[in-house]
Amino acid sequence: MSRIAIQGVEASFHDIASKQFFGDTLFSTVYCDTFKEVFTMLDEGTADYAVVAVENSLHGPVNQVYDLLLDSHFWIVGEVLLRIEHCLIGLPGAQLSGITEVHSHEVAIPQCEDFLDSKLPNARRIVEHDTAGSVVKIKEAGDKHLAAIASTQAANLHSMQVIASNIETNQENFTRFIILTKQHTRVDGANKTSLILQTKDDTHAGILYHALKAFADRQLNLTLLHSRPIIGKAWHYMFYIDVEAGIADQNLKQALLNLEEQHFNVKVLGSYEKAVYQQV
Amino acid sequence: MSRIAIQGVEASFHDIASKQFFGDTLFSTVYCDTFKEVFTMLDEGTADYAVVAVENSLHGPVNQVYDLLLDSHFWIVGEVLLRIEHCLIGLPGAQLSGITEVHSHEVAIPQCEDFLDSKLPNARRIVEHDTAGSVVKIKEAGDKHLAAIASTQAANLHSMQVIASNIETNQENFTRFIILTKQHTRVDGANKTSLILQTKDDTHAGILYHALKAFADRQLNLTLLHSRPIIGKAWHYMFYIDVEAGIADQNLKQALLNLEEQHFNVKVLGSYEKAVYQQV
Repeated sequence: MSRIAIQGVEASFHDIASKQFFGDTLFSTVYCDTFKEVFTMLDEGTADYAVVAVENSLHGPVNQVYDLLLDSHFWIVGEVLLRIEHCLIGLPGAQLSGITEVHSHEVAIPQCEDFLDSKLPNARRIVEHDTAGSVVKIKEAGDKHLAAIASTQAANLHSMQVIASNIETNQENFTRFIILTKQHTRVDGANKTSLILQTKDDTHAGILYHALKAFADRQLNLTLLHSRPIIGKAWHYMFYIDVEAGIADQNLKQALLNLEEQHFNVKVLGSYEKAVYQQV
Repeated sequence: MSRIAIQGVEASFHDIASKQFFGDTLFSTVYCDTFKEVFTMLDEGTADYAVVAVENSLHGPVNQVYDLLLDSHFWIVGEVLLRIEHCLIGLPGAQLSGITEVHSHEVAIPQCEDFLDSKLPNARRIVEHDTAGSVVKIKEAGDKHLAAIASTQAANLHSMQVIASNIETNQENFTRFIILTKQHTRVDGANKTSLILQTKDDTHAGILYHALKAFADRQLNLTLLHSRPIIGKAWHYMFYIDVEAGIADQNLKQALLNLEEQHFNVKVLGSYEKAVYQQV
């Protein structure tokens, strides 16, 4: 039985993503407090897979995860695209007008700012490590004046009440999760490859242009590009790139060779099957 | 006397940036709760200038501000680069070991996560609208168990005690602020231009490559590039670009013309003098 490490608790968005990917196969979940712990679990062999968020449509890349990927030698074997829908959750019988405290993850609270500003302008906003974990916390407190922001799944799991649904400001709120293994694994039908490019030299004008030329010359489509500039050091960049081609693709191999010969260190993070968004 | 709108209160990072830019000139500050309010103040003529954060070295672009810039017709006339240093601030006599609640802005709290996890693992983390505003809040509460995360300036202004300095996890924490006016203003010595490119068509492979080619062909250096992909819509991108050239530069004019003729809507946000980081 596979053991899957995620950051968060049961019914967290990581948990939902993990279950969407592994579906009906039998697996156990190793719940961790931090991304760092997730990576350690995988490294030490306590887990066989890890599921981690890499990108949100509103916030961009999860830089912390990319930093961990850069320092590790794990391999991406798949991805999941999840629509993030937030609910305001309280104890059974809790009423919106009575809520004085809202608990949730640091990212979830600002995502619901319009709702909170208009409906609960005076409620205190408390940062917790996790969305679903904050549901557990208010349940244990047993106070009808407390609410949490989390998924419907978290409300159902803990028999709590959904006070308001879809309270996120922007409905175009998607998070992309990747599935990692310790061993480099060849994925059948891989049609997407993720990589990080780092410039070798400190300064080089037009470097991104040259990076993209290597792909464009070979008709390789990029589905994602994030540049992470270091402020004050113009052109000292790191690029997160997703290419629509499997790692066995000859054009991609040539492009990567070409980039290595130029001004880049190329780190391939994995090659896997592109996810299609599924309504769940 | 110029009136300058900022988001935040006295001694907030916006206030520090504003004072660094306007220096010794006589001006008054219009303190606003939200970025939206700042833009409204400028639009309605209640303020002559606005100072807004556009980018942080750890978090990337402030997408909300770029969205407001896209919808408005303001003009960037300058920029400020500010090193963000966070302090833990309490009432005079407050001690680290006695702190049970930490109040601050939603962005400042995660920036100090390592410090909070190791030194104050059990303290509640409360989200406020503002860093310096949370200092006022805990001062008014008069409780030595409460602390705020904000600048040294905020501690000094309110005669509060700095319990710990430089508590940010990453010292490479810079924020770039821009100075906006309502009228298009020609800045003498402008050597940097900010713009937003939007693709006209939904899908076009290699579009970023073509965008960068227009600059690279004319030896125009980019000092910033952020791509903001819309997940699920590959190649439907928006680009935030800073070019090292004034808007009067013939090469830049040609590049922008070329981009308009291709697949882009170009919105010039302003042309101004490039800031050099000043230790303050």
